[in-house]
Amino acid sequence: MKFSAKPVKGTFDVLPEDMELRNWVRNVISNAYLSRGYTQIETPCIENLDLLTNSEGGENLSLLFKILKRGNKLDFNDLSENALCDLGLRFDLTLPLSRFYANNRNELPMPFKAFQTGYVWRAERPQKGRFRQFTQCDIDIIGDKTIYAEIDLMLTVPKALYDLGFRNFTIKINDRRLLKELVLAAGFTESQFDTVCISLDKTDKIGTSGVISDLQTKGFEDDTIRQLISSLEIDLENFDSPYARDLKKIMDVTAKYYSILFDPTLVRGMGYYTGPIFEVVSDEFKGSIAGGGRYDNLLSKFQNESVPAVGFAIGFERIVAILKERGFTIPKRDKRKIALIVLDETFTDKAIALSESLIAQENIAAIHYVNKKKLGKKIEALEKEGYEKIQIVDENTTEESFKSI
Amino acid sequence: MKFSAKPVKGTFDVLPEDMELRNWVRNVISNAYLSRGYTQIETPCIENLDLLTNSEGGENLSLLFKILKRGNKLDFNDLSENALCDLGLRFDLTLPLSRFYANNRNELPMPFKAFQTGYVWRAERPQKGRFRQFTQCDIDIIGDKTIYAEIDLMLTVPKALYDLGFRNFTIKINDRRLLKELVLAAGFTESQFDTVCISLDKTDKIGTSGVISDLQTKGFEDDTIRQLISSLEIDLENFDSPYARDLKKIMDVTAKYYSILFDPTLVRGMGYYTGPIFEVVSDEFKGSIAGGGRYDNLLSKFQNESVPAVGFAIGFERIVAILKERGFTIPKRDKRKIALIVLDETFTDKAIALSESLIAQENIAAIHYVNKKKLGKKIEALEKEGYEKIQIVDENTTEESFKSI
Repeated sequence: MKFSAKPVKGTFDVLPEDMELRNWVRNVISNAYLSRGYTQIETPCIENLDLLTNSEGGENLSLLFKILKRGNKLDFNDLSENALCDLGLRFDLTLPLSRFYANNRNELPMPFKAFQTGYVWRAERPQKGRFRQFTQCDIDIIGDKTIYAEIDLMLTVPKALYDLGFRNFTIKINDRRLLKELVLAAGFTESQFDTVCISLDKTDKIGTSGVISDLQTKGFEDDTIRQLISSLEIDLENFDSPYARDLKKIMDVTAKYYSILFDPTLVRGMGYYTGPIFEVVSDEFKGSIAGGGRYDNLLSKFQNESVPAVGFAIGFERIVAILKERGFTIPKRDKRKIALIVLDETFTDKAIALSESLIAQENIAAIHYVNKKKLGKKIEALEKEGYEKIQIVDENTTEESFKSI
Repeated sequence: MKFSAKPVKGTFDVLPEDMELRNWVRNVISNAYLSRGYTQIETPCIENLDLLTNSEGGENLSLLFKILKRGNKLDFNDLSENALCDLGLRFDLTLPLSRFYANNRNELPMPFKAFQTGYVWRAERPQKGRFRQFTQCDIDIIGDKTIYAEIDLMLTVPKALYDLGFRNFTIKINDRRLLKELVLAAGFTESQFDTVCISLDKTDKIGTSGVISDLQTKGFEDDTIRQLISSLEIDLENFDSPYARDLKKIMDVTAKYYSILFDPTLVRGMGYYTGPIFEVVSDEFKGSIAGGGRYDNLLSKFQNESVPAVGFAIGFERIVAILKERGFTIPKRDKRKIALIVLDETFTDKAIALSESLIAQENIAAIHYVNKKKLGKKIEALEKEGYEKIQIVDENTTEESFKSI
């Protein structure tokens, strides 16, 4: 029986060239974060199923990969999925971070400034640019209730994007509480807030007129709708709300470095956000390449006190896809890539000694044992692989032979 | 309901300090491999269940984490695990590599020299040093049937171990075919080979006398056993076998750089090995820290022709544990770690500008917004976090303030 060599539906193999790009993106982001005093952590890819299913994961909960119980623990008295399974693959890095913090807080500084990069899994219908296994890249500050946490993130994440080569981007910012004030002031009720948000969230795609018809379709009064739309024209400067004042402060500091814009229609999907929310957009691509917000209640799942937290995630797969579309090439490393060809095995030892010496001098040096008849084809292949110097090792070869390329 | 904050049984959270160590180990290995012309790849953590269960995974197959089917695909007509599940977590990196190679071979150089580092999962009974999610770190050459593949690995993997700080280690080497020749020549039958290997494999633990009684317990003739034990004293130099000659060649080249020893009792567990096998041991720790061998038939699972392959894996978790036990500290980065303290928010902009300038000069610079009353405690905490320079930002602070530490 021959098996299919295709990876699991919705997942992908990473070939050497893509791996280099992914490593480069990861390193650029890590360096931007480490330089600003953030530390890196990691959590397991699997979590207990009851933790996952009782989280604020929203629609991600219907996309869980669940792991069957093993051995005696597996019985078939109850055929519900949550009785058959005890573990699941994580669907994001935020829930694991909350668990991590509760588990290790005594060993962590306060506030805790951390970042993590790792795979997450969602059983989505596979489509272009949407995967079942993909990398998330999160940065969070836990234990700081002041807006200085937001300010720190607002200068750190855009720096990573800048270092990745992105230029004409804008940070859009709003506050969930401010948004709620506006919606309630327009005459909507508390229980209508979520559905109004779903309409507002479409502003980017369907424009203000589209939002108005969307709200009309939902049966809301024209007056209430008109009131909301006009209140969205608010001037942050003159709006009497502590949330507006805080947004203003965050924006004033950030604007010295990056383009930042107040957008009262910004909603962000996740239900757990409790304060400022933000995302990074650009005319150069559709959708956002980074987003986040404050989630002060999520960590109370593990402890009785509420712990303030704010996070910002870079769309790793998005970034990689955009860079590939642009034909981006990784800034050239200063290492030379040298191939030492052995046609005659009596020169094996010599080739090894030469290569070790070249490697010690910070070169990439690989030995290739080649059949004389296939030499031409081999050299062609090595050039394609990016070898800058290709040298046949024989009695005349010395270190001098590699001095120039 | 409060949830347990512990990670899933047998898995672990990685705290910042451990993460630094793990990243360092990964980088040292990557650099040793990249410098010698190997390229990095990655495969998904999940594979199709029928692929996993029909592999040469041996006892790992009973340790599989299986993933429940989703949606309509899940029915309960058949309650066997392999009918309820369609995916599984990978238990090693070798099977995924074989699939990867078959899937992408047209885009890969020949021979293909690759390495990969990633998590694998096995539902083992958790115990000290044995995890259910752990990192494997493999390097392989696919498509080279000559011993130059073994030689290349024999100089590459030990270099990584050397760069990780390991010194007094020895490479033990044997050949599965040579071992079989010896066992059959002693009078055992083909079908007894595996059980004889299981006994021989214990030589390190129970000595030759232990192996003899083990074979006696299994009911073998004293004469046959004596014949085997004496044949294990073979002199590679004078033994008339192509396998012995090849081993001798590999050892001659390698011995110029590393300690390498022929060990006719070396077995290595995996059933798929077809030629030379090897592992790295040291008096400084129990067991091996790296091991591998040639597996020329594994790739025929996906294609009709057989594709030669040889691999070498470093015991990543083992290495990390040994380094931690030794109290190893990562070679100091040349970046200074600077804390800028803001006690008065009027200095926020100044602190940010200073920190960005310090970061641009290759420092790590983090801003800490501190309540005056908590300053002493905060400084203590920052010193513990390894900040070498802690500076309160006020009207007198300039770039000069950070010139020395």
